[in-house]
Amino acid sequence: MPPAPERAFASDNAAGAHPEVLQAVIDANRGHALAYGSDRWTSEALDRFRDLFGPQSEAFLVWNGTGANVMALATMVRPADCVVCTEWAHIAVDEAGAPERALGAKLLTLPAPTAKLEPAQLRSLAHLQGVQHHAQPGVVSITQSTELGTLYSADEVAALCDTAHSMGMVVHLDGARIANATAALGGTVQAMRSFTVDAGVDVVSFGGTKAGLLGGEAVVYLNPQLATRAMFVRKQVNQLPSKMRFVAAQFNALLHDDLWIRGAAHANAMAQRLYELTRDIPGVQYDGGPAVNSLFPCLPPEVIEPLREWCFFWDWDVSRHQVRWMTAFDTTEDDVDRFAGGIRHILKNS
Amino acid sequence: MPPAPERAFASDNAAGAHPEVLQAVIDANRGHALAYGSDRWTSEALDRFRDLFGPQSEAFLVWNGTGANVMALATMVRPADCVVCTEWAHIAVDEAGAPERALGAKLLTLPAPTAKLEPAQLRSLAHLQGVQHHAQPGVVSITQSTELGTLYSADEVAALCDTAHSMGMVVHLDGARIANATAALGGTVQAMRSFTVDAGVDVVSFGGTKAGLLGGEAVVYLNPQLATRAMFVRKQVNQLPSKMRFVAAQFNALLHDDLWIRGAAHANAMAQRLYELTRDIPGVQYDGGPAVNSLFPCLPPEVIEPLREWCFFWDWDVSRHQVRWMTAFDTTEDDVDRFAGGIRHILKNS
Amino acid sequence: MPPAPERAFASDNAAGAHPEVLQAVIDANRGHALAYGSDRWTSEALDRFRDLFGPQSEAFLVWNGTGANVMALATMVRPADCVVCTEWAHIAVDEAGAPERALGAKLLTLPAPTAKLEPAQLRSLAHLQGVQHHAQPGVVSITQSTELGTLYSADEVAALCDTAHSMGMVVHLDGARIANATAALGGTVQAMRSFTVDAGVDVVSFGGTKAGLLGGEAVVYLNPQLATRAMFVRKQVNQLPSKMRFVAAQFNALLHDDLWIRGAAHANAMAQRLYELTRDIPGVQYDGGPAVNSLFPCLPPEVIEPLREWCFFWDWDVSRHQVRWMTAFDTTEDDVDRFAGGIRHILKNS
Amino acid sequence: MPPAPERAFASDNAAGAHPEVLQAVIDANRGHALAYGSDRWTSEALDRFRDLFGPQSEAFLVWNGTGANVMALATMVRPADCVVCTEWAHIAVDEAGAPERALGAKLLTLPAPTAKLEPAQLRSLAHLQGVQHHAQPGVVSITQSTELGTLYSADEVAALCDTAHSMGMVVHLDGARIANATAALGGTVQAMRSFTVDAGVDVVSFGGTKAGLLGGEAVVYLNPQLATRAMFVRKQVNQLPSKMRFVAAQFNALLHDDLWIRGAAHANAMAQRLYELTRDIPGVQYDGGPAVNSLFPCLPPEVIEPLREWCFFWDWDVSRHQVRWMTAFDTTEDDVDRFAGGIRHILKNS
Repeated sequence: MPPAPERAFASDNAAGAHPEVLQAVIDANRGHALAYGSDRWTSEALDRFRDLFGPQSEAFLVWNGTGANVMALATMVRPADCVVCTEWAHIAVDEAGAPERALGAKLLTLPAPTAKLEPAQLRSLAHLQGVQHHAQPGVVSITQSTELGTLYSADEVAALCDTAHSMGMVVHLDGARIANATAALGGTVQAMRSFTVDAGVDVVSFGGTKAGLLGGEAVVYLNPQLATRAMFVRKQVNQLPSKMRFVAAQFNALLHDDLWIRGAAHANAMAQRLYELTRDIPGVQYDGGPAVNSLFPCLPPEVIEPLREWCFFWDWDVSRHQVRWMTAFDTTEDDVDRFAGGIRHILKNS
Repeated sequence: MPPAPERAFASDNAAGAHPEVLQAVIDANRGHALAYGSDRWTSEALDRFRDLFGPQSEAFLVWNGTGANVMALATMVRPADCVVCTEWAHIAVDEAGAPERALGAKLLTLPAPTAKLEPAQLRSLAHLQGVQHHAQPGVVSITQSTELGTLYSADEVAALCDTAHSMGMVVHLDGARIANATAALGGTVQAMRSFTVDAGVDVVSFGGTKAGLLGGEAVVYLNPQLATRAMFVRKQVNQLPSKMRFVAAQFNALLHDDLWIRGAAHANAMAQRLYELTRDIPGVQYDGGPAVNSLFPCLPPEVIEPLREWCFFWDWDVSRHQVRWMTAFDTTEDDVDRFAGGIRHILKNS
Repeated sequence: MPPAPERAFASDNAAGAHPEVLQAVIDANRGHALAYGSDRWTSEALDRFRDLFGPQSEAFLVWNGTGANVMALATMVRPADCVVCTEWAHIAVDEAGAPERALGAKLLTLPAPTAKLEPAQLRSLAHLQGVQHHAQPGVVSITQSTELGTLYSADEVAALCDTAHSMGMVVHLDGARIANATAALGGTVQAMRSFTVDAGVDVVSFGGTKAGLLGGEAVVYLNPQLATRAMFVRKQVNQLPSKMRFVAAQFNALLHDDLWIRGAAHANAMAQRLYELTRDIPGVQYDGGPAVNSLFPCLPPEVIEPLREWCFFWDWDVSRHQVRWMTAFDTTEDDVDRFAGGIRHILKNS
Repeated sequence: MPPAPERAFASDNAAGAHPEVLQAVIDANRGHALAYGSDRWTSEALDRFRDLFGPQSEAFLVWNGTGANVMALATMVRPADCVVCTEWAHIAVDEAGAPERALGAKLLTLPAPTAKLEPAQLRSLAHLQGVQHHAQPGVVSITQSTELGTLYSADEVAALCDTAHSMGMVVHLDGARIANATAALGGTVQAMRSFTVDAGVDVVSFGGTKAGLLGGEAVVYLNPQLATRAMFVRKQVNQLPSKMRFVAAQFNALLHDDLWIRGAAHANAMAQRLYELTRDIPGVQYDGGPAVNSLFPCLPPEVIEPLREWCFFWDWDVSRHQVRWMTAFDTTEDDVDRFAGGIRHILKNS
């Protein structure tokens, strides 16, 4: 085997922090600053989020993605509501039941082969509404980009929001990878606004960690009416950072000069490069090219373990011998080229 | 007024990170590392905690103090249990109801003028046990050092643990300021063990943030039987850091060569220095000297606002004109001397 | 000892059902009727509650008192709210933590020597409002008649409601013994309205069981805005009776021709009779006469067990040798006279 | 149309109480009895349940089916567990999210065309166990007879229990219609024991209401280790009847001389009779005959409303023009014959 890539393809959260982000933390470590958000770094971060999402929006900095989602949903559900999402939703399958514990509410999962909800699926829930025996569909949660690496167009999000609102529901967008979605859908702040605030989304979980922070996310209320209890709920779901300046400073670097979009665009490009370099290798089977920064190839079963030992990645669907390769903001062309070379090498010799 | 201190006396969480802690984060930002704790920094941190608390113990790294407490308690309560604590307990008054939300359990608060529970108070709850109309006292939570800056001796903790265990209860110690307590009670790891593992405490929330981290705490199970669900509960209460190496690296620096004890000993000494320099100033009334790093003087009401404008601190009990002055690991003698000078100046001229 | 009374003085829930209530159940057991409230008995009961509380009100039939309280509060709390009540409140001390489990919310208990809250106590909570570290006082729950057998005047309830509303809070009245309170405060429907709907109470738990039902309570929304989710929440807290006609039929009998007030007036009169017959017995110490249907005398310790063995009652405060004697709608003059005779007999011979 | 049946075919909970059950309530309404289960009727009922399920079992009387299920599950889940059930489970689709609210736990619903779980489905969840990102499959809940009117054989239940136990899970059986299942599977107490205690079920929700009570269910612990917190949890989920003697007296009548089995056997026979009388009517399409007391025919769409107006029943699957006809313990042969006659009449003339 050739030398392994310096960085593997396990996940975008295996990456470290972007150097500019780390520098911002170093710079913020000067003297004392009041805790819990009463500091100038936090003020600046909240301003930056208002610049992104408009003056009516309100952002809250939090620790992590599960926490952001739980906080958002906890301010959106009314008594006896349930949260509608896909069977692939991170909130439903990868958060250990955190939403159910914190909300005391049901997650109503709907089938979704591409991890995307459709307006007709929401309409099909209308018969539950107003019936005392059923948890009430009150919140829709979608993920952008999705857990399967797919994307909603801005029009698709708008159609979902219109349907949801017409049924008295509100819409949450889990944007753990909103940067990758933004990069893929135009690469501008305006592109991001088109599938969030302009589309009618009520609350966004804005991902920072996968985009290059040490750790940090934000819950952004585009519908300010839902924000009235947010400050208290953040504390209540264990998401109020004490020395908040250090979360804020990271975001200030990330949001500066579109660093978040640039990093994600690079990650997406590296996935595309990997796809191009491996799509023709006999034995590597793709359903299609990547929309964002993940690939889900099927491989001959006997090569998976040797390949993984050489350069780590996760299984996806063991029954299909499907794996996941994921790039990050710091994946290099050299990493991709070496990885593609190794794949080619192993498959030629298997 | 003389020049204000460089660092105010608002809180130990107004301090930044210790330089060695920050350097450890910088050093950990090399390449990729698997998320959620499958990295070498986390392995090292868990080893360090085992060194502290013994080989039977098990530590879990988390984001923040409220999260640590909630996670700990969520693994300790049985169905229908309540958590017994003082009326001053941080979990009862300063966590926005986070425990009640996450646990669905009552916090039974008992009166405690010095923020310390006594065994007799536990025994007085025996009549509730076994009666179907009452939430069942099942967990005791004490704070060391307490919210009022007082300390339990190791014997006092042991007596509480003995009583609790004899009643079928388990004991949680909220150690948000366990470093300050350790420094005050001997300044050695053995001192810390005397009031935790040796005293019979079951689970400790081990504070990192106030001791000099950017942010990070640990839940340490001294009673390993209570740890069986801890891994899942951590995720469920939003306390599983994604890029965990950056939390672990901070702890590795903090726990290295007793940095946590040294920093806290310094903070305690600075509070003592402030006490010595101000106890004789007419108008400054203390109930006594500091046990750890906080002072709660009563002041003439007319000087409080001018003094606060010059160098910030928080009110404590407005009705008594009582305020709180708190030192941190990075408070300097110069900070203390300037602050004492300002106090003297203002009181002389008031 | 003389012969014991036919009915003891343990509690009003030791009584059975009023014969007219039982007859109504017998009469309702004819043929089929749709479940969950779609039956004519339920329609009639809801009409009767509207007659009591006014056309804007909305009633929901439920199983039991704890369920009624939990349902009411679950529709009243906003995210991160806490419920303010006295240290004696049934919801805080006698419901096994049911509110905390169902609501995920803190109960903030305030000292109250006579089990009554005062407006100044609410005002003293204002400093918690808007501060992110504290559960937010959002609901006040008072009990009428109280757990100590005391009463709020209509003016006192109105003052509490005015203060609560001015602070953005809503008011729940636990009326497990609302019949006894009504009988004591005038004995008319108008008297009951004076301390509920006219006083500004938002939601009432209307007690049926202690007033003579087999089992059944109602949650009555005087503030209809709080009722929008009530139907779903009732089911969610396990309080939706399947064959609801049998709960409704009981209420139809109880609310007919003021049977509920008449029964409670009789119970109150029997307590007063017991007080008059025993107040002068040496060794029986009262703080005062009964406001409703309970007495809390202190007795010489050596007579308590013999007396209890002869005719059962519960302890109240063991440390003071205080017991509770309670009358019910079916307590007879003969029961009272025999009990008083036995007390006199035992104390003369002790 | 011929005259409509005296009793419709809407549901078994549209029936009233069995006359012997009502008489038992009348008989129990004598004098005072201590509340909350300290009465002789409750003692007798608990004895009767031990006779049914064995001396190691422990029964708790409760109000209603949702409450019984929630109480059972609340004593079975460990922290971070989820409850595995079918997509048709009453707990998942017809309890308004009550389990999620009370447990704070996820319900993991699995596809099940006949509403029955299979051991292989449990085994397929093994990959979730021990992984910190996933709620932990810890409890299996099955329904007997199922929501689709199907039955598990005793062997099928035993196989599920064996698989569940081997995976560290415990098994709950929702027996809202356990009487109908018992009648169908042999009609003896031993038959019932074969698919519960002998099969390895841990906890049973034992249905009383649909079997002929005014209202009342029982939670029966066959695994006594799970009962240690049951008493407190019952109160906590609002399921502790105050005047418990009236629930107990109903059960004493129902369990006397197998009245519960005889009533259910009759209901089952009436469903069979209806099936026999209607299976050959052109336009009435069955998938097969009834296993218990419900039929799910598809009908020509234009006859459904006229037929329902004449004699009420509920829709089942509107998209297939499928309805549900259900018999009860008190359905008469005359009811069935008239209903079949009406169906024949309408379909001949449509």
